[in-house]
Amino acid sequence: MDFPSKLIENAVVELSRLPGIGKKTALRLALHLLKAETDTTANLAEALAKMRFDITYCGTCHSISDSAECSICANQLRDHSTVCVVADVRDVIAIENTGQYQGVYHVLGGVISPIEGVGPSDLHIDSLVTRTTAEGSEVREIILAISPTMEGDTTAFYLSRRLREVEHLNISTIARGIPMGGELEYADEITLGRSIVERQRQAR
Amino acid sequence: MDFPSKLIENAVVELSRLPGIGKKTALRLALHLLKAETDTTANLAEALAKMRFDITYCGTCHSISDSAECSICANQLRDHSTVCVVADVRDVIAIENTGQYQGVYHVLGGVISPIEGVGPSDLHIDSLVTRTTAEGSEVREIILAISPTMEGDTTAFYLSRRLREVEHLNISTIARGIPMGGELEYADEITLGRSIVERQRQAR
Ligand SMILES: [Zn+2]
Ligand SMILES: [Zn+2]
Repeated sequence: MDFPSKLIENAVVELSRLPGIGKKTALRLALHLLKAETDTTANLAEALAKMRFDITYCGTCHSISDSAECSICANQLRDHSTVCVVADVRDVIAIENTGQYQGVYHVLGGVISPIEGVGPSDLHIDSLVTRTTAEGSEVREIILAISPTMEGDTTAFYLSRRLREVEHLNISTIARGIPMGGELEYADEITLGRSIVERQRQAR
Repeated sequence: MDFPSKLIENAVVELSRLPGIGKKTALRLALHLLKAETDTTANLAEALAKMRFDITYCGTCHSISDSAECSICANQLRDHSTVCVVADVRDVIAIENTGQYQGVYHVLGGVISPIEGVGPSDLHIDSLVTRTTAEGSEVREIILAISPTMEGDTTAFYLSRRLREVEHLNISTIARGIPMGGELEYADEITLGRSIVERQRQAR
């Protein structure tokens, strides 16, 4: 594609690095910004940069946070004995939006994927084990809320093996309702909420 | 939607102001940026801001430009007697990419739309007339390459009325081939290129 301006070309190139955004869409977005008030672009550029450079992660659950402890971990009204283990922050947001869950979370930061070279040590698995087995830990239930894909199932299997020796700990997986091979984040709120409420305790 | 971080929420809000980007897609893009190198976000934010604040428009054809005269108007190898009139910079890019057109352009900046309150004086129409009628003007042909929508047809009709008194000026419209009601920018390159080559001279 030829561009009448290097400035537009650069913007299109950078926009089209985003997932699902091709050159044509990127050009559309760039030209939209050119027509809109300068503030629209200034606010967008600033919000993106601020997010990327100022974001921190919760020291307990590894979720995204604006401070050292996230608002969920810091909330004493939540049930800290129940930990919902998810692959991604996206899943925390999706489950929070169901309004069905009162426990806390643990964000793995991905799933085990030999093909993509992601092993257990690349994920926040050790800190989950520590959090569960530490002296005085109040964790009594682990809910594995991981997408039922091949990598997700491998990860869930690995986690239950690592945790099965822990005494007085129930391990459950979210109920069927999520279609097999489906991505958690695309589930509607009702299905996802229900799959949390009807979670199934795992045989040990 | 609830967000675990104000920083993410702001980024999602600003991203979802872009056309065709909903909250879910915006969140996906924001989380993608968080996972990618910081450079990805820094480069994107800078490219957008630079584009918006540094862009200029060609004084002759009103196309986007990095300087006072665009690279097409400045190119003496192009045929300056033929002016292709388009609604938008997107159309210039689309026609340039066909490789079928050697003339120059005139970008109206939109089409006449009474519903959206866009009248002839909101578009670069006077400067087209001046450019065509000025003492010593080398313009001999005007190609109206405007999408055949209702507003586009109104605009083309208005332009041919404004220009019909100009002596020694041929006015043509791009050939059929663009589906009725279709948007120019979505046409494939072959159809669009052909519609330029087979442009139809308008009866006066
Ligand atoms: Zn936390
Ligand atoms: Zn120009």
